[in-house]
Amino acid sequence: MSWNTFGRVLRFTTWGESHGPAIGAVVDGCPPGLALAESDIQPFLDARKPGQNKFTTQRQEADEVRILSGVFEGKTTGTPLSLLIENTDQRSKDYSEIANTYRPGHADYAYDAKYGFRDYRGGGRSSARETAMRVAAGAVARLVIPEVSIMAYVVEIGGDAVDPANFNAEEIGRNPFWCPDPEAAKRWEKLVDDARKAGSSLGAVVECIATGVPAGWGAPIYAKLDADLASGMMSINAVKGVEIGDGFGAARLTGEQNADPMRPGNDGPRFEANHAGGIAGGISTGQPVACRVAFKPTSSILTPVESITRDGEATEVRTKGRHDPCVGIRGTPVVEAMMALVLADHKMLHRAQCG
Amino acid sequence: MSWNTFGRVLRFTTWGESHGPAIGAVVDGCPPGLALAESDIQPFLDARKPGQNKFTTQRQEADEVRILSGVFEGKTTGTPLSLLIENTDQRSKDYSEIANTYRPGHADYAYDAKYGFRDYRGGGRSSARETAMRVAAGAVARLVIPEVSIMAYVVEIGGDAVDPANFNAEEIGRNPFWCPDPEAAKRWEKLVDDARKAGSSLGAVVECIATGVPAGWGAPIYAKLDADLASGMMSINAVKGVEIGDGFGAARLTGEQNADPMRPGNDGPRFEANHAGGIAGGISTGQPVACRVAFKPTSSILTPVESITRDGEATEVRTKGRHDPCVGIRGTPVVEAMMALVLADHKMLHRAQCG
Amino acid sequence: MSWNTFGRVLRFTTWGESHGPAIGAVVDGCPPGLALAESDIQPFLDARKPGQNKFTTQRQEADEVRILSGVFEGKTTGTPLSLLIENTDQRSKDYSEIANTYRPGHADYAYDAKYGFRDYRGGGRSSARETAMRVAAGAVARLVIPEVSIMAYVVEIGGDAVDPANFNAEEIGRNPFWCPDPEAAKRWEKLVDDARKAGSSLGAVVECIATGVPAGWGAPIYAKLDADLASGMMSINAVKGVEIGDGFGAARLTGEQNADPMRPGNDGPRFEANHAGGIAGGISTGQPVACRVAFKPTSSILTPVESITRDGEATEVRTKGRHDPCVGIRGTPVVEAMMALVLADHKMLHRAQCG
Amino acid sequence: MSWNTFGRVLRFTTWGESHGPAIGAVVDGCPPGLALAESDIQPFLDARKPGQNKFTTQRQEADEVRILSGVFEGKTTGTPLSLLIENTDQRSKDYSEIANTYRPGHADYAYDAKYGFRDYRGGGRSSARETAMRVAAGAVARLVIPEVSIMAYVVEIGGDAVDPANFNAEEIGRNPFWCPDPEAAKRWEKLVDDARKAGSSLGAVVECIATGVPAGWGAPIYAKLDADLASGMMSINAVKGVEIGDGFGAARLTGEQNADPMRPGNDGPRFEANHAGGIAGGISTGQPVACRVAFKPTSSILTPVESITRDGEATEVRTKGRHDPCVGIRGTPVVEAMMALVLADHKMLHRAQCG
Repeated sequence: MSWNTFGRVLRFTTWGESHGPAIGAVVDGCPPGLALAESDIQPFLDARKPGQNKFTTQRQEADEVRILSGVFEGKTTGTPLSLLIENTDQRSKDYSEIANTYRPGHADYAYDAKYGFRDYRGGGRSSARETAMRVAAGAVARLVIPEVSIMAYVVEIGGDAVDPANFNAEEIGRNPFWCPDPEAAKRWEKLVDDARKAGSSLGAVVECIATGVPAGWGAPIYAKLDADLASGMMSINAVKGVEIGDGFGAARLTGEQNADPMRPGNDGPRFEANHAGGIAGGISTGQPVACRVAFKPTSSILTPVESITRDGEATEVRTKGRHDPCVGIRGTPVVEAMMALVLADHKMLHRAQCG
Repeated sequence: MSWNTFGRVLRFTTWGESHGPAIGAVVDGCPPGLALAESDIQPFLDARKPGQNKFTTQRQEADEVRILSGVFEGKTTGTPLSLLIENTDQRSKDYSEIANTYRPGHADYAYDAKYGFRDYRGGGRSSARETAMRVAAGAVARLVIPEVSIMAYVVEIGGDAVDPANFNAEEIGRNPFWCPDPEAAKRWEKLVDDARKAGSSLGAVVECIATGVPAGWGAPIYAKLDADLASGMMSINAVKGVEIGDGFGAARLTGEQNADPMRPGNDGPRFEANHAGGIAGGISTGQPVACRVAFKPTSSILTPVESITRDGEATEVRTKGRHDPCVGIRGTPVVEAMMALVLADHKMLHRAQCG
Repeated sequence: MSWNTFGRVLRFTTWGESHGPAIGAVVDGCPPGLALAESDIQPFLDARKPGQNKFTTQRQEADEVRILSGVFEGKTTGTPLSLLIENTDQRSKDYSEIANTYRPGHADYAYDAKYGFRDYRGGGRSSARETAMRVAAGAVARLVIPEVSIMAYVVEIGGDAVDPANFNAEEIGRNPFWCPDPEAAKRWEKLVDDARKAGSSLGAVVECIATGVPAGWGAPIYAKLDADLASGMMSINAVKGVEIGDGFGAARLTGEQNADPMRPGNDGPRFEANHAGGIAGGISTGQPVACRVAFKPTSSILTPVESITRDGEATEVRTKGRHDPCVGIRGTPVVEAMMALVLADHKMLHRAQCG
Repeated sequence: MSWNTFGRVLRFTTWGESHGPAIGAVVDGCPPGLALAESDIQPFLDARKPGQNKFTTQRQEADEVRILSGVFEGKTTGTPLSLLIENTDQRSKDYSEIANTYRPGHADYAYDAKYGFRDYRGGGRSSARETAMRVAAGAVARLVIPEVSIMAYVVEIGGDAVDPANFNAEEIGRNPFWCPDPEAAKRWEKLVDDARKAGSSLGAVVECIATGVPAGWGAPIYAKLDADLASGMMSINAVKGVEIGDGFGAARLTGEQNADPMRPGNDGPRFEANHAGGIAGGISTGQPVACRVAFKPTSSILTPVESITRDGEATEVRTKGRHDPCVGIRGTPVVEAMMALVLADHKMLHRAQCG
């Protein structure tokens, strides 16, 4: 199957290929009366945009979004929003020689196995270019949850982690890595540049925190807030792992160590720790909602890798297109967008049932 | 909201509380003509059943499943299967004093915040008792995918991991921990027993491998096979993390290290590694589908933890009911069941679109 | 496929066969805190119950509903409600000889063609017995929309229509036909009794009016209030037509005749007519929501009808079981239930988007 | 809510307003490998296109469709198809004076009541312009069901019905009314022209027949083939009634008259009648699938009708824009499209469950 819709009452559907004429999204179920213009969406797209510095792919895309429906006199009407971005820099020739070869680690072989053939230009539908539309839809979702602040940042590249003691939220926007630790940011400059020059690639871990989420969002059992976050994050290109709160670290704790003691607070309980990442039983607790997402190193590398052709012959693949040395960096705004989309959907779901 | 259905074309809905008269599931969309009797389901429930040894909760439940619909003359009819298990050992008195207190780390507070009140007997709907019905539904799902073999096992308890060099699939059923490493199993006996005696609890990591999955299952972009696995696994009680293939480990590799080279094989490509866990672009590659799931230590411990009452007064909670010292152990058959349910659904989804 | 769930946020799933041990429903998404006991559901089941007079099937079913989950201390908890009715009067022998014969007009052949075989006892899943669970679920839905009053009644049997001039809502419960016109009720006694004695059957038209529905419910374009009503009503056994407002009659009017002029009212507009049946653009207008539903005569008749066996041989079928001479009569409470279920779902959907 | 997606596995989502820059649809789940170009879609859009003769609205729209994604080298790839039509003839000034007035019978008041305000230009999202995208999506659906032939035609305008004895399928395309009876077509010329000149409007009944549907499609109980058809047809603008087979006529028959006797045939049973419209128990029987759809007269008429302003003041409305004197005519290709979309979805659903 093909299943390009996410969400339960606030639903968005994306379409488009890396090298087609355009990509787009339809956001359905958005509340009416929200002030919305292209300028509310564009800054988030600009944050994700390729070609901004030497640490991301050199593909140049303006990524200018147009709103084709669902807004009247500057406000959402409650009808579907159609968002569209034209593809402008599609060098299809870069990809021509891989038409008959499977790039190891890419979706090439899997798409062929499933659909019988594939749009091989730039990965077609499997390209991370699709995530631009998540960012656009996420910008709309943010308007649905003005009470929530979302912040994603990179905490690890190629195994080199930030030092929590150096955490400074204001640093995040000051370096090309969305890094909250200025010292790590300095180290990563060399690390990522070396990888880029060597035609290699690096994995990364992105953390995302949402504050202001009230207690009560989440739809147990099969639309738990954490389950929907896991689904949304895992669907991002190159993501191989998702943790809520302490995640795999919690598996190494005892019950005593993992406890989140509660104390009387002014406005609901005050929690003394947040091992749970703000979610219990699939429902938000009022604490910050916290998750971590693992990005693998992109499979597009200059080192030749053994592979096969469509006809099953042995060959070697060396990916020569323009690629990100560390996709986790540009994945950061996408993680933020998915957090916004899941939370907005759950705010509305909660309102449906509990008024 | 409440959202108790999982799956897209093979859908199951569970219902029931820990201390209600019964729990159940409705499995809808099952192919017709499959031989099915209670005896096909019962062994899987027995594997998950509580009270079997000192390493799991002492609650005694027969967990005898009845099929109330959807089977005629020993075969599935294609109409909904209703599965029901009566609750027999419900010592509600154990829980009476927590009616007005929030157990830290449990869903108590979150349910109250969401719904205004809660069924406090044994956690009500948030109890892991619900997972019995996943195991029952999973037994049905297995019949839909006879080509697939699924094996889950515990690879880590309380930070003590198995040694991959000792891996022996036949060991898994021979110890009470679903442990594939006989030496680790020995160590865990003491580890878990000590935790039990101390009224403490331990986290665990469960690994699950599905072999025989053909290339081509998975529904990009928002029902990717890995995204659905992440959702299904994260929805299991106490789960805080999900990895596909190398997961967070992949974030520490370079593109060269993470490559899964392909070679010509007799029957499709032969892969020389499986960092990707059998999934690329959200679609199965024909390699084993592999995931790892992190279980936190259960929050029910004898050590008093600071908490508050429903009225917001400070108190302490010491959980006296019958609990698992390590919920990851009994979670293992549940992980297997979710793997089966996701794969069966995707086999059918693939058939819908690609014939 | 098999698709036994109805609704979008207030969702119910039914299961069970005519001659299985039980039938049931799971109602998911119900708001928490509603007072609910079996006694809130039972009267609606009693209204639909077979065997109450000579104008309905003589099958005797107590139709006693049990609530197995989702209620605690007399109130809905927001978790799934499991409703169950045991089948008590299942004379399977009545049906044995049709195991290898297709009853014309029944679903026998279609089920065999789809699923390869069928549960032939009493029609199995295709039996109107399933509608008991809609009535049970509908009783829950009514609690979600206390502002709405729903009234269904039979306006035509075998082509003999009520006289609108005689309409008296209080008559509806006073005769076995849910007939609002006492004179028509008298005529129908003979009409239906004659059909019953002759082993024949009659069609009927049921009208349903919901008052108190505020303006604004309905989810254009593909979950319009009228589209969901059409789907819900058409899914009732033996239904072959659905009209909203003037329905097919509107097709014979001019625009002037069909206009619903609006005048200033105290509390929103005052409409001078309701050709539209209270729905415009798929959204309620605040007027009574009105629909009409056509029931065919049941296909179970004593007159032999030409048919074929499972092996394709010519045969004749004469249905000897216990059947309703006019299924539209017992369909009336089912129509009411579906109206309640659609409206409750849309109230919640509206709340999700518009607060 | 807003719910702009239809279908279960073959899903399409439409977006766009009457006077926005464009309208569009995303078709998701389409099987891969189907030959598809704009020229496969355009003829169906041309059939529905406005401004072709004096019997339809004089709005001029080229309705040229573009495929923006999902096709590669002339074949569907299995990924979402994005279809887009630019709006070219949007005379917004025609509508300016209705911004503050509710047109009786239109969705104006209902949209305001739901969403708080509305895009009043040409009815915004509630305009029948949306149906162009159904026709485009329907053209894709036809490719999924090459075994099926679909034919819709008008059987009644303003109460003047065709004579079944004159039925000639070849006539349908020869007159501007999709009328299968040449004599009726002649009468309708005057009838519709008179209505047009008088600024009045007429209702119509459209019949639709699908031949070649094999037995076995349909998903009982809540996605019955007839229930999905009812939903799809009722969601078309101006539709107020749907019948399957004999529909309301069946309510006037006896069981004997309504029987569909079966005889041995060469290739499955031969039916001697088709009162059921090719559907039993929600599943196709192999006979032609037949439905009838009632279109009300459009509410846009030159005769002043009493209404109110947004502020609740009494006023009169006389609709001066360009409108169809009989919307049922242009609704005919839309009915065909919905039939194709429902059948294609059910073919795929059947394949998912029954292989």
